[in-house]
Amino acid sequence: MADKRVYLFREGSADMRDLLGGKGANLAEMTNIGLPVPPGFIITTEACRQYYAQKEQLPDGLMDSVRSAMSEIEGDIGRKFGDTENPLLASVRSGSKFSMPGMMDTVLNLGLNEETLKGLIRASGEPRFAWDARRRFVMMFSDIVLGISRSRFEAIFSACKEKRQVSQDTDLSAEDLQEVAGKFLALVRQETGRPFPEDPWEQLQLAVEAVFRSWYNRRAREYRRRESIPDDLGTAVSVQAMVYGNLGTDSGTGVAFTRDPSTGERTLYGEYLVNAQGEDVVAGIRTPLPLSELAATNPEVYKQFREIGERLERHYKNMMDLEFTIERGRLFMLQCRVGQRTGAAAVRIAVEMAGEGLISREDAVTRVSASHLNQLLHPRIDESYLAENGIEPIVEGLPASPGSAVGKAVFDADRASRMGAEGESVILIRDETNPDDVHGMLASQAILTARGGKTSHAAVVARGFGIPCVSGCETMKVDERSRMFDANGKIVREGAWVTVDGTTGRVYLDKIPLISPEVGGEFDTLLGWCDEFRRLGVRANADNPRDAKQALKFGCEGIGLCRTEHMFFEKDRLPIMQSMILAETDHDRELALQKLLAMQQQDFEELFVVMDGLPVTIRLIDPPLHEFLPAHEELLKQVVELRVAVKSLGADAIKEVLQEKERLLELIESMREVNPMLGLRGVRLSILIPGIVAMQTRAILQAAVRVKKRGVEVNPEIMIPLVAHVNELRTVRENLDKVAAEVVEEAEETVTYKFGTMIELPRACLTAQEIAQHAEFFSFGTNDLTQTTFGVSRDDAEGKFLAKYVELGVLPVNPFETLDTEGVGKLVRICVEDARRANPLLKFGICGEHGGDADSIAFFHSVGLDYVSCSPFRVPIARLAAAQAAIAERAETPVAAMQN
Amino acid sequence: MADKRVYLFREGSADMRDLLGGKGANLAEMTNIGLPVPPGFIITTEACRQYYAQKEQLPDGLMDSVRSAMSEIEGDIGRKFGDTENPLLASVRSGSKFSMPGMMDTVLNLGLNEETLKGLIRASGEPRFAWDARRRFVMMFSDIVLGISRSRFEAIFSACKEKRQVSQDTDLSAEDLQEVAGKFLALVRQETGRPFPEDPWEQLQLAVEAVFRSWYNRRAREYRRRESIPDDLGTAVSVQAMVYGNLGTDSGTGVAFTRDPSTGERTLYGEYLVNAQGEDVVAGIRTPLPLSELAATNPEVYKQFREIGERLERHYKNMMDLEFTIERGRLFMLQCRVGQRTGAAAVRIAVEMAGEGLISREDAVTRVSASHLNQLLHPRIDESYLAENGIEPIVEGLPASPGSAVGKAVFDADRASRMGAEGESVILIRDETNPDDVHGMLASQAILTARGGKTSHAAVVARGFGIPCVSGCETMKVDERSRMFDANGKIVREGAWVTVDGTTGRVYLDKIPLISPEVGGEFDTLLGWCDEFRRLGVRANADNPRDAKQALKFGCEGIGLCRTEHMFFEKDRLPIMQSMILAETDHDRELALQKLLAMQQQDFEELFVVMDGLPVTIRLIDPPLHEFLPAHEELLKQVVELRVAVKSLGADAIKEVLQEKERLLELIESMREVNPMLGLRGVRLSILIPGIVAMQTRAILQAAVRVKKRGVEVNPEIMIPLVAHVNELRTVRENLDKVAAEVVEEAEETVTYKFGTMIELPRACLTAQEIAQHAEFFSFGTNDLTQTTFGVSRDDAEGKFLAKYVELGVLPVNPFETLDTEGVGKLVRICVEDARRANPLLKFGICGEHGGDADSIAFFHSVGLDYVSCSPFRVPIARLAAAQAAIAERAETPVAAMQN
Repeated sequence: MADKRVYLFREGSADMRDLLGGKGANLAEMTNIGLPVPPGFIITTEACRQYYAQKEQLPDGLMDSVRSAMSEIEGDIGRKFGDTENPLLASVRSGSKFSMPGMMDTVLNLGLNEETLKGLIRASGEPRFAWDARRRFVMMFSDIVLGISRSRFEAIFSACKEKRQVSQDTDLSAEDLQEVAGKFLALVRQETGRPFPEDPWEQLQLAVEAVFRSWYNRRAREYRRRESIPDDLGTAVSVQAMVYGNLGTDSGTGVAFTRDPSTGERTLYGEYLVNAQGEDVVAGIRTPLPLSELAATNPEVYKQFREIGERLERHYKNMMDLEFTIERGRLFMLQCRVGQRTGAAAVRIAVEMAGEGLISREDAVTRVSASHLNQLLHPRIDESYLAENGIEPIVEGLPASPGSAVGKAVFDADRASRMGAEGESVILIRDETNPDDVHGMLASQAILTARGGKTSHAAVVARGFGIPCVSGCETMKVDERSRMFDANGKIVREGAWVTVDGTTGRVYLDKIPLISPEVGGEFDTLLGWCDEFRRLGVRANADNPRDAKQALKFGCEGIGLCRTEHMFFEKDRLPIMQSMILAETDHDRELALQKLLAMQQQDFEELFVVMDGLPVTIRLIDPPLHEFLPAHEELLKQVVELRVAVKSLGADAIKEVLQEKERLLELIESMREVNPMLGLRGVRLSILIPGIVAMQTRAILQAAVRVKKRGVEVNPEIMIPLVAHVNELRTVRENLDKVAAEVVEEAEETVTYKFGTMIELPRACLTAQEIAQHAEFFSFGTNDLTQTTFGVSRDDAEGKFLAKYVELGVLPVNPFETLDTEGVGKLVRICVEDARRANPLLKFGICGEHGGDADSIAFFHSVGLDYVSCSPFRVPIARLAAAQAAIAERAETPVAAMQN
Repeated sequence: MADKRVYLFREGSADMRDLLGGKGANLAEMTNIGLPVPPGFIITTEACRQYYAQKEQLPDGLMDSVRSAMSEIEGDIGRKFGDTENPLLASVRSGSKFSMPGMMDTVLNLGLNEETLKGLIRASGEPRFAWDARRRFVMMFSDIVLGISRSRFEAIFSACKEKRQVSQDTDLSAEDLQEVAGKFLALVRQETGRPFPEDPWEQLQLAVEAVFRSWYNRRAREYRRRESIPDDLGTAVSVQAMVYGNLGTDSGTGVAFTRDPSTGERTLYGEYLVNAQGEDVVAGIRTPLPLSELAATNPEVYKQFREIGERLERHYKNMMDLEFTIERGRLFMLQCRVGQRTGAAAVRIAVEMAGEGLISREDAVTRVSASHLNQLLHPRIDESYLAENGIEPIVEGLPASPGSAVGKAVFDADRASRMGAEGESVILIRDETNPDDVHGMLASQAILTARGGKTSHAAVVARGFGIPCVSGCETMKVDERSRMFDANGKIVREGAWVTVDGTTGRVYLDKIPLISPEVGGEFDTLLGWCDEFRRLGVRANADNPRDAKQALKFGCEGIGLCRTEHMFFEKDRLPIMQSMILAETDHDRELALQKLLAMQQQDFEELFVVMDGLPVTIRLIDPPLHEFLPAHEELLKQVVELRVAVKSLGADAIKEVLQEKERLLELIESMREVNPMLGLRGVRLSILIPGIVAMQTRAILQAAVRVKKRGVEVNPEIMIPLVAHVNELRTVRENLDKVAAEVVEEAEETVTYKFGTMIELPRACLTAQEIAQHAEFFSFGTNDLTQTTFGVSRDDAEGKFLAKYVELGVLPVNPFETLDTEGVGKLVRICVEDARRANPLLKFGICGEHGGDADSIAFFHSVGLDYVSCSPFRVPIARLAAAQAAIAERAETPVAAMQN
């Protein structure tokens, strides 16, 4: 068996995905459970790996195995490959272990040449059909195998349609198609200097090699890098006898899902095209019919198909995506796979299937991905704003991927990618998308296409990544060169703001306000199940009562990070903060601190009331003080201008203003820092200006006392940022405990609080054993920890080189999005182990942005943290990811693998 | 013995320093080898620790032990403590394990009261002497034990001398002194509300407690922190029978060294005062006589003393510092300890003692400290000139680059360059420097800046070129336009003579005489011995042939860091570098790179010739490109001024200048970074602009080829900075190896080079196992590694909070000066272990500034690095420290302990 490189469908099964690819394994499975699948065979991924190991040479004897497999098929179907009477034609498709939509290539109708064409005409009695197959084959083969751009062929085809003054392909006659095919062949000879390969076996070998080669094309490599799929898996090749959906009006081809992939409703959902080949549906060239039409026109076939769908769903215990072809009234299954779905559908299907007893609750939880939930948490358009302002959409298309987004119109993928990397919100607008556009699609807030259905490339990719999409806006004329589109006479140019609603399919000009989502129903059910399974606690990062309420609604179990300085940035407080910083005497500083105290205390009281008894982790002041002062550059400009004015006008009135500004400028310049991220901030401030800690501690504890006296339970946790050395923590704690004791004594009320520190510098991780002895909790600040461990300033890197690094494959992912487990994670692990040994009662949390990232949460679970804390809108995702990590641990299976 | 808290001198020995303190142990030792020591006893450090453990209570029974020890002394000396006929008086002194000069307190003549005073008069027959002792005792006791400031007493004493119109204490009569004593006692009663304690035993107990308490006084704690002496050692108390140097002209007291502590010459060196007590010598109230006077006036005593000195030197095998008293012609030894010495003396004494066979060569090497050598390596200010003339610095800043220099103040680089070329000595004084100033810096004797830390541009360039530099003189206001600076109200104009001491950070007005460094002789001998013992290699950081030659002279074994970008900062190259950065087309960039190539190649050729066969480690470009461009702020000011001018004057001529500057400003603004230290620099640049790597590689290898063809051996090592991820190194290496292969092919000459990386980010240490597989050497860049591990920007921290941190004891030392072994060192250790496992052939070096710091070198030795690299002037120190580390390792004794 070791040398077996070719498997007949009947020799394989669904669990052989590694060897046969997902597509091949499922064809084998369907064959073996007795479904009508055209016969075929699969060349293994192992053969592909050998092909690369031997410097792109097919393994010895491979084509011999292919020939003998082909003869088995010939026997099954009663046609012969290369036969001039009743020729067997084949489809050749790639298929890797993981689904890579649109990434690999397909050749249909392989085996056609001048001679077999005649046989096809004879056998089918349909010259038009045969010539159609011929022109399709020449174009696809030339594009994929010979590398001649498809657009060259399409231009010839369009010219022919124009000449005949028809709009549909089906309106062309056999003669027209024959003429087209002739021109195609001439183009091939002109481009390659050789005639089109006519030998079917040569065609087959070239096609197999082309599929192998496509494994390493740029699109495929980029997709794999993004999805963390290893490069060395290789692809299988499935070779299958063609059946024809384009043999007349009793033929057709379609795709379907066993449940609605948008809503999750339990209903067979799909579309089909009469008298067409599979590629026509996907390409979106003709607009397909809903499956209900098939039920009406051919109830027998429809019934058979529905039963197959139900059977496959029971068999796979999942919602399936099916491809079928009807050849002269006879149904064939061409593909089945687990269906992509929207977030709403994923949740509903998971919960309902668990309800139906088809899957367990654990299965249900693992069936929903973080990006599925993320879609549900997407904002939607404020309809009342539209109504009040009488705003109408400028175009409408198909609601291809739900959610709404606002962004600037951009007409090519490269620019979208670049602008997106720079932090701009963009909407990618294309006539239709293709795999070359994926990088731009991923960088966009939403995608808008003029052509293509709900299963078009744009729609599939967008849904997969949770990006809102409207496709098939047929009234919109996109001019990619002039960077604009024309919507019923209204011109929209690049850079204009556009709002896209992927849930309704409507597109609006300008920025329309969006509303945050509300969730419930199956969403709550599923998250309830998550809470049963997870071990990690989930808290939220919230600085004010509003965010805290939102987070509670999403099920947080406390606040893991309340950034007190955000309170100082508010409009009425900033001047007081500034006077504290600029104070020339201790007395002035104390006065300003007193004012801030009253305000902070009020803030904390409100927060404690909202959180009623849940822990609230309050981080003392963190940013450098110059962040609270006027911007240096602006002030400098003013001073220079005023100096010139004073010099030339000698105006005394201005002189005073100038002097005032000069004083401020001098002060700000004395506080400026070369690398503020590594400067006087965090605990360093607290040590140099102990009055701030004293004020903040007093505010927290006085608030706690007040609220407690009103009967509210309070659990404050005071957290010190940016500790590098244990002595910093010790110094601050002495100051803080003294103030706390004073407050308790004054109030004659006991309040307990926890004392802890953020762990956000490598040195804190490396000396955790010492620091642990002076803290009750650690909370990893993985943003700063990533910055210092990598030596990368996020502010500077994300716009400049991080995107390039990911693009070049220097880094697998942006480490600010998903935790770098090798480097930063190693520090986290060292820290947890050392600290726990020194202080077994210590609690560990994480409050960096990674706290809301599913992959990172799996890591945090594995190192044994106690909780993650993330932004309120990521709380549901954290609950899900934490549950999945716990389930995966029990099953000893990575989370990612469970979702495929 | 466990409970024994009081030791008679004859019960102790020199090796009981832990228990008896250094002073007590040496008194015991001298007693036991039969030297004339007044009898006494020592209360142990253990008693002091118990005192603190019991909340500042003397241990039970301690005073009983003291009483019985006192009775032994009484027997030895034939006087009784508290006796009214012939009273025994005592000195009470502190004495800890480590010498803490001036830190602890002493009380003399303890036991005097109204009654014993009469006895003293009777026994001595000298009322004046007795009253002198009385007034001394009341003052010292009141100051140290009762906390009444000494100055209050001195005022009374001075008033008395004034009244009597005498200048010398000795001119006062017994009656005068009696009057003074009376006023002293009245002052004590007034201040404390109680009479002066008259009971000798109460006096003794209070004095012992005061000595214990003084262990924790501020001066003592600060000294310990600075010298890294643990706080929990405690101090011993020695109580010794008084002998009197103030009993007339046949009495006296003095101090001496067994060799000259300034030059190391083998001669008894000291001074003494006739008719005085010990404190008078130290206090400097009267000018003492040289010991030669004693030889003349009392040859017997002198001869006895000289023999004692020789005996002690042989006994201790070291140069000794002695205190003695002559009481009516009889010699008593009061103290002996290892003598402090200058660098020159340390070297000479060590080498000569080894020559005399007194100590081994290993001992000789450990007897000289890094700071001893450092004194010898730079011109230094003649401190005695400062003292004699009472000269104070006008400003003080950071000691940014060691050595002293004298020159004329100059306020711009062009003028400095011009005057320097004309042979004038100039000091360049700037607010801060930038790359445009380098030509002026190189022409200056020293550099002085108002802003910037020890890694500021000025500091780095100065250290690199061995030019003294004081940076960050925050109290100095530089007015570059008016060509002057204001130092606390003192105006210094261009052309004025200034002396800068980069070793201490002090700046003086006028020309201060300097002492030039002398090396050779014993210096070379000692370093030769070092080379026999050390295991670590010693290389130098040198960017040009001049530095390389200097380093070779100091015994370096290669270049460990050649910073290629320093070459770009030179005046003729900066414009080319700028045009490379600002190039709008690839072609323009390529042209600029070609020009730089020729220059770099020339640089490398010269360097290779100088280093002839020794390894030369060349680091590819490291700093962010904006460092090569004009300063943003200056340009912004110009643009704003020009804009105002264009607006109000409408001058078309200016318009063009403005537009040009605006373009440049825009470009510079697009390149600005929030945290440049963590921005687009190092390997990141090399990946984004591969042309720079290609140019630099070509320059290195073409230079190597040319030089090799001339018969010079070359060993280039190419080093990549700032690697965080193995893929960065891999990417650059591919590019580099390709270029190298091209050069070798073109030249038809093989050149081998090593490829390696700096390890200066935590992530590189944590993933060393992977990185090690793509490198032949690692060189730790501990400056940046310290910055990132601590999350501290050196530029911002040194001026602002690091000093405060050290002062408050939050950090024991500045981690940029001595490696933080707990945090940064832990990363180094992890890195070395993991990397060596992955690649056993890997070589490890260190080229951060810690490579020249003795304590850090001991650590690098212990983790098993192969070499350290430091600035040329630190090479001798590195050789010494490396040898000491190796010797200490063999002896299993820390280096610091061997020097005490």
